[in-house]
Amino acid sequence: MFDAYGTLFDVHSVISICNQKFPGRGPALSQAWRLKQLEYTWLRSLMGRYEDFWKVTESALVFACKALDLPCPLETRAELMEAYLHLQPYPEVPQALAALSNYTRAILSNGSPRMLQAAVESAGLHGIFSHVISVDEVKIYKPSPRVYQLASQKLGVAAAAIGFVSSNCWDIIGAKSFGLWTCWVNRGRAPQDELGFAPDALAGSLADLAGALKA
Amino acid sequence: MFDAYGTLFDVHSVISICNQKFPGRGPALSQAWRLKQLEYTWLRSLMGRYEDFWKVTESALVFACKALDLPCPLETRAELMEAYLHLQPYPEVPQALAALSNYTRAILSNGSPRMLQAAVESAGLHGIFSHVISVDEVKIYKPSPRVYQLASQKLGVAAAAIGFVSSNCWDIIGAKSFGLWTCWVNRGRAPQDELGFAPDALAGSLADLAGALKA
Repeated sequence: MFDAYGTLFDVHSVISICNQKFPGRGPALSQAWRLKQLEYTWLRSLMGRYEDFWKVTESALVFACKALDLPCPLETRAELMEAYLHLQPYPEVPQALAALSNYTRAILSNGSPRMLQAAVESAGLHGIFSHVISVDEVKIYKPSPRVYQLASQKLGVAAAAIGFVSSNCWDIIGAKSFGLWTCWVNRGRAPQDELGFAPDALAGSLADLAGALKA
Repeated sequence: MFDAYGTLFDVHSVISICNQKFPGRGPALSQAWRLKQLEYTWLRSLMGRYEDFWKVTESALVFACKALDLPCPLETRAELMEAYLHLQPYPEVPQALAALSNYTRAILSNGSPRMLQAAVESAGLHGIFSHVISVDEVKIYKPSPRVYQLASQKLGVAAAAIGFVSSNCWDIIGAKSFGLWTCWVNRGRAPQDELGFAPDALAGSLADLAGALKA
């Protein structure tokens, strides 16, 4: 069971279009955009004011542009949002998924169903996943336990029988807190979050995953 | 009803002790520490894994030091944590609170009761507040509606009869979403968060508050 954004798909592949629109500011905008996007998922969930990930992503973009003093008319905003529908997969993704073909492969993501379908197709990963599960079914974002419970329900297997893979440490900890087996893909060699739980396994990229599962 | 951290007390007054321990890295550490502190309140709340604000603040410090590659032995950590018990109030705070002496003045904060008591006393604000309310009573952090409801219960007045003042825009939006009257103290001229609600009033500092309440 894979997280999507940051795990399969590189959210910072929006940097090139951001740079086209705002020369030299692409990395700063991409970073502020992503940070706010996550914050808004947590804040809306806590407030009990769910809106889907497309809306949240757009709101985060609007805020990030204002914070960085980048004028972003509606047309530019639409073009930047469009980039979210065809994020690049990390280079090792196709081969790593192929190496796991004897497992049931699925996605569990904050993304809205439309966003996920577009991203999977655009990355050439159509047909690989038996389930593409969106939090939209439960109207609350990760790391609410309701999200990880949804994964267990949809697959019809116990939480502990699911191997959950994410590059977002807080997502791994949320999954572990609920009872999933977890592997943190720590591409950036970040320190582990201090939230009372630890991943069951670590990987430097998805290429290490088959080995981690065997161990 | 005042938020405490960032509103009455300057969380970045820890910069000087951070600079003593890690010369030149004070601002970066303070910023990373605060950001992670907030993230952890949201994540723990969503996970249903509440720990009090002292624990969360310490966990955030541990993470921030690791992320910035600053070695932080237990003794240093204890000294940095100690700074949280005597944060400096913003300069206008005593006079602004005095100007509101015909209102019931209270605090509604993420802080643990012990942290809040220490900060209020250290800032010389003892005796001003009729209620110092901690989220610890409901074991979930802002912006959960249960926190703002607690304020209404403790004061025994309707939500709309409470004027809530915070420098944290997301806190203002959480309070507004629940039904409190809100004034956002925007000292840093930040853009407003895009979360579907807007503050009822704006202020550049607490010194503007008496005027905003009259208007």
